[in-house]
Amino acid sequence: MKTIDVRSDTVTLPSPEMRQAISQAELGDDVFGEDPTVLRLERRLADLVGKEAALLVASGTMGNLVCVLTHCGRGDEVILGDQSHTFYYEAGGISALGGIHPHTIPNQGDGTLRLEDIRAAIRPDNVHFPRTGLICLENTQNRCGGAALSAEYSDAVASLARDNGLAVHLDGARIFNAAVALGVDVSMLTRGADSVSICLSKGLAAPVGSVVCGSQPFIDAARRTRKILGGGMRQAGIIAAAGLVALDSMIDRIHDDHANAARLAKGIAELSGLQIDPAGVRTNIVYFDVVREGLSAETLVSRLAQRDVKMLCSGPGRIRAVTHYGIDRNDIDRTLSAMADALDAP
Amino acid sequence: MKTIDVRSDTVTLPSPEMRQAISQAELGDDVFGEDPTVLRLERRLADLVGKEAALLVASGTMGNLVCVLTHCGRGDEVILGDQSHTFYYEAGGISALGGIHPHTIPNQGDGTLRLEDIRAAIRPDNVHFPRTGLICLENTQNRCGGAALSAEYSDAVASLARDNGLAVHLDGARIFNAAVALGVDVSMLTRGADSVSICLSKGLAAPVGSVVCGSQPFIDAARRTRKILGGGMRQAGIIAAAGLVALDSMIDRIHDDHANAARLAKGIAELSGLQIDPAGVRTNIVYFDVVREGLSAETLVSRLAQRDVKMLCSGPGRIRAVTHYGIDRNDIDRTLSAMADALDAP
Amino acid sequence: MKTIDVRSDTVTLPSPEMRQAISQAELGDDVFGEDPTVLRLERRLADLVGKEAALLVASGTMGNLVCVLTHCGRGDEVILGDQSHTFYYEAGGISALGGIHPHTIPNQGDGTLRLEDIRAAIRPDNVHFPRTGLICLENTQNRCGGAALSAEYSDAVASLARDNGLAVHLDGARIFNAAVALGVDVSMLTRGADSVSICLSKGLAAPVGSVVCGSQPFIDAARRTRKILGGGMRQAGIIAAAGLVALDSMIDRIHDDHANAARLAKGIAELSGLQIDPAGVRTNIVYFDVVREGLSAETLVSRLAQRDVKMLCSGPGRIRAVTHYGIDRNDIDRTLSAMADALDAP
Amino acid sequence: MKTIDVRSDTVTLPSPEMRQAISQAELGDDVFGEDPTVLRLERRLADLVGKEAALLVASGTMGNLVCVLTHCGRGDEVILGDQSHTFYYEAGGISALGGIHPHTIPNQGDGTLRLEDIRAAIRPDNVHFPRTGLICLENTQNRCGGAALSAEYSDAVASLARDNGLAVHLDGARIFNAAVALGVDVSMLTRGADSVSICLSKGLAAPVGSVVCGSQPFIDAARRTRKILGGGMRQAGIIAAAGLVALDSMIDRIHDDHANAARLAKGIAELSGLQIDPAGVRTNIVYFDVVREGLSAETLVSRLAQRDVKMLCSGPGRIRAVTHYGIDRNDIDRTLSAMADALDAP
Repeated sequence: MKTIDVRSDTVTLPSPEMRQAISQAELGDDVFGEDPTVLRLERRLADLVGKEAALLVASGTMGNLVCVLTHCGRGDEVILGDQSHTFYYEAGGISALGGIHPHTIPNQGDGTLRLEDIRAAIRPDNVHFPRTGLICLENTQNRCGGAALSAEYSDAVASLARDNGLAVHLDGARIFNAAVALGVDVSMLTRGADSVSICLSKGLAAPVGSVVCGSQPFIDAARRTRKILGGGMRQAGIIAAAGLVALDSMIDRIHDDHANAARLAKGIAELSGLQIDPAGVRTNIVYFDVVREGLSAETLVSRLAQRDVKMLCSGPGRIRAVTHYGIDRNDIDRTLSAMADALDAP
Repeated sequence: MKTIDVRSDTVTLPSPEMRQAISQAELGDDVFGEDPTVLRLERRLADLVGKEAALLVASGTMGNLVCVLTHCGRGDEVILGDQSHTFYYEAGGISALGGIHPHTIPNQGDGTLRLEDIRAAIRPDNVHFPRTGLICLENTQNRCGGAALSAEYSDAVASLARDNGLAVHLDGARIFNAAVALGVDVSMLTRGADSVSICLSKGLAAPVGSVVCGSQPFIDAARRTRKILGGGMRQAGIIAAAGLVALDSMIDRIHDDHANAARLAKGIAELSGLQIDPAGVRTNIVYFDVVREGLSAETLVSRLAQRDVKMLCSGPGRIRAVTHYGIDRNDIDRTLSAMADALDAP
Repeated sequence: MKTIDVRSDTVTLPSPEMRQAISQAELGDDVFGEDPTVLRLERRLADLVGKEAALLVASGTMGNLVCVLTHCGRGDEVILGDQSHTFYYEAGGISALGGIHPHTIPNQGDGTLRLEDIRAAIRPDNVHFPRTGLICLENTQNRCGGAALSAEYSDAVASLARDNGLAVHLDGARIFNAAVALGVDVSMLTRGADSVSICLSKGLAAPVGSVVCGSQPFIDAARRTRKILGGGMRQAGIIAAAGLVALDSMIDRIHDDHANAARLAKGIAELSGLQIDPAGVRTNIVYFDVVREGLSAETLVSRLAQRDVKMLCSGPGRIRAVTHYGIDRNDIDRTLSAMADALDAP
Repeated sequence: MKTIDVRSDTVTLPSPEMRQAISQAELGDDVFGEDPTVLRLERRLADLVGKEAALLVASGTMGNLVCVLTHCGRGDEVILGDQSHTFYYEAGGISALGGIHPHTIPNQGDGTLRLEDIRAAIRPDNVHFPRTGLICLENTQNRCGGAALSAEYSDAVASLARDNGLAVHLDGARIFNAAVALGVDVSMLTRGADSVSICLSKGLAAPVGSVVCGSQPFIDAARRTRKILGGGMRQAGIIAAAGLVALDSMIDRIHDDHANAARLAKGIAELSGLQIDPAGVRTNIVYFDVVREGLSAETLVSRLAQRDVKMLCSGPGRIRAVTHYGIDRNDIDRTLSAMADALDAP
């Protein structure tokens, strides 16, 4: 019986079309700028999000790192959410490698940063302070339940940034999930950002890669940053080929992932010992809490694994499940049965 | 008429005894470890705070920087207060120069970090996370109204740190203010810390310098860190000589600064248009808010300057005054008159 | 007519077997350590070079960067050749991102660093000096004409390093070229090194990727370094699959590249206006100098491009040609004709 | 009997006039820009070297570090001599703290860098290369025997830099020694440099401090850099006061140091077992080699110490002696006697 792996949408396997595209991709040396498949993918994504240019990178973490390092010099400060992927899950790379000072402010439950918090975090010009250089948003916001930030909110942050001479970077690892959930064109969510990083894996189910989009001068500079990180890859068209198929075939089906996540959340809400607000599940990420005396999240996750369902502990008492291309409605129902069974286990 | 400068306790001028000590100091080349006055000061402070060894540095900022860089390698994470001097006022140096990732948690009103917040901020061992390397405390906590952290609290943090294999650095720029306010020996406040940085200027009124204390191996390593920062000074006994006089003559008089601060706070509480909780003023730092419609903190500070009283804006609507060796009870009364006058100005 | 691209061995296109292997690869999420193809490749290469463990990375630059950052902390010093790829072509990444201080010593014509130069570059223990942490070798040495370093020399450097408590990193981007040229098992060239970085592209003709090898603890630490750089890729088996085919099918044919390079060098030696020492060409890299009055390397390269032969300027008056999987004996002869023609062009 | 300490000119003790000036200095808080003595010293030095502005720092190492960090961003490359103080003796700080990539080229025997070597070290604009940002000179050049670089040479480097859009930093720790030796106004040696760092200790005999000079915008930026390093000191007038006396009283007597060094060199040339080129000693630094079979530099230095003469080993078989304010002609003769005696010791 198939294992149901909902630990993350990064576990997706490529579709047969992707495999075929990879094996037939027209290739070249992308460090020389000569891989036609990479160039096609970069052009395609830049157009989709309404930017001048784009750059393929090895991962979402590299996408964010390349952008922040390109925007900010040594000692600049970045304003970002205390629940943001960059602060939380990227091993402190912007400080470790770039000498950049993160200034975290609290992510609200809906994934936003309050405008007044952002404003208060901007530093005056004084030798005691780092220079504020950048504001980072994340859409959808993973740790806030995959919350989607609206175009209006994103524009408001961009406007605040512009008024203060700051740039905005958007961690759009799951930006297509946001666009689908909000029912808007993706470019409405990216128009205010100076740079966007978008994952081809995750919801789009390609095996490897992310793409960074921005103005031509920004992408030219980002190319240098990518090279210094060792992210310049040679016949990278084998990665880009799958990405192109993903853009063709995976965006429309994201609403299935959202429906499956909603179904899972609704089911979890009916299980005793677990706590969830199903109304908070709008995209493909489901967080819930284990509230049964004597039962830890770790124990429940391990019982589920014995029942061929893989989830992830994401904090004390908290479990995460993420729907994706490899999960269908049936799997959700099997997952809920396994959960009910695991909760009742002796 | 003398200007009353309560912007900071860093503005103090050296006492006549300090000037004399400087001019007669026995000197040597401290980079070779041969300045006898520096060695005496370092020995003296190490003994006072109960550590094996000590190291003279150029400033409080350098003291904290030397310690954090010595404790932490590239990419390590430091847990510290969002109101801490190191996060707030040191230009992001630990990231900019050391590649260290600050993990801020909220300072409570009493200057403490909640133990559960510290615990939650410690990272599990996982490639997604930086390694937590250090917890920083600040005593007294400047931006929390000069609050003094108790020995019990400091020990509790140290114990939590030890349980998790972490080091503790104490920014003790004003540690003698804390000891005097709490009525305890300074070593009770430093005993749990792996490193302490103490300012000779500020409450101790010496012209220049801070001293870092810790174990002998730590100080040996810190000496390398100081050198790389350019903090190795030659005949530094001219700085240390004043520091030795400060330790002899300035600690006992700190309670005057606290009494003056309390008097100032009480007086401010009686002025209309200003808001303060006098009970919160326990050491030498007085923060108050301007709450009169149409009157900004900047305007009030500028009106006070015209009346020969210098204060500092320290946030929107907030003003800071700090008592020190250069301020006596009379100056407090003059300050209060000037404030009353400035508030009534057309 | 096919363009002859000898700018670099990085321009190789994957073989049909590689394309097939990629399209059928068994995949998983390598950030979770679950991509079976990646695990197979890592095991395979670790065994080949005689190390405990291995790690797939995105590029040769990332391979070197991951290793140097894993060996060295902030401010450590690395001894390396002034013609080394890491110093010359990696954008200063070890300093920019890692705070590591390069200490270059001259590469000799045969690609070696003189042992006495290495010894003299090791720093005494003193606050004025960085700590020496690492010695880097490169085999084959690209800028020294693709020179192969012998096992005896490599062992001697390793022994010197051990005597001084230092680690050795081997940039083995083209280590299989060295092994084939010297007629020794590759593990004899790597046995003294604490880490080795090997490219799957270049001589092995895979589209993307390099592999780092070392002890298990080193590779565990390197995995963290890779993650922070954004080099953690998801279904990276699409890259590894081609690498496995490359190891099966490409090593034996490297001697063809060497024979082709020798043929090219010999032909160039007969052309007037160019200077080369054919005896110095032992692997797949051919450097030669343009010595005809009034003819620049740039002009000659551009004339060759018009004749469908691509070479690279690699310094004032110097041109580089590199043979590889995409170049056969016929291409060499066509190249020589094009060169003769280009030299005679009006 | 007085110990003759010629290890370095950093061991000088302040003159009585300096001690008096320190004890009477008019002081203020220099972090607020309000120390009148510091401001006077900065103005004075800026005028002397022909720059708009100046900044007091804690040491020569900090002077160079502040300047290089202010000129260069993360990942920029600096061209400097392989015998330069910054590369050799500053613990790798520009890389460790600033992420700057040093590109060393050989110092010639006369302390210069060959213009063609500088030119060849400038990087083309390409993603493989760091950006060249700065050229550093050192005048006098300590490790090249205190060689003085001429105004003509300095101007030629400045012109080369300007032609390539690069800045020049001059490590002028001993620039007054150079000016005196060459018999030129100091400003002729500094006019081409974008920044100069000058030591108040060393030849000028003040106890502590160096001063950085440059354009107003450069110094404004350098002030931020100084602050982040922890180099902002409060009543720094106690340091500056001695510096002002040094500028008044110490420059004219530098020719005595040079005469003493020449006398020492000439005497050493007559001692058997030592090797020196007395013609190479033009300023106050004397290097000589121990060439007697069975006698190491360490042994000779230790025998001299027993005879109350302190020198420094500065490399295998090499010893350094430096003349300064604390050494008179008599001391030179005593030193030579001690050397003769030590060489003859059993």
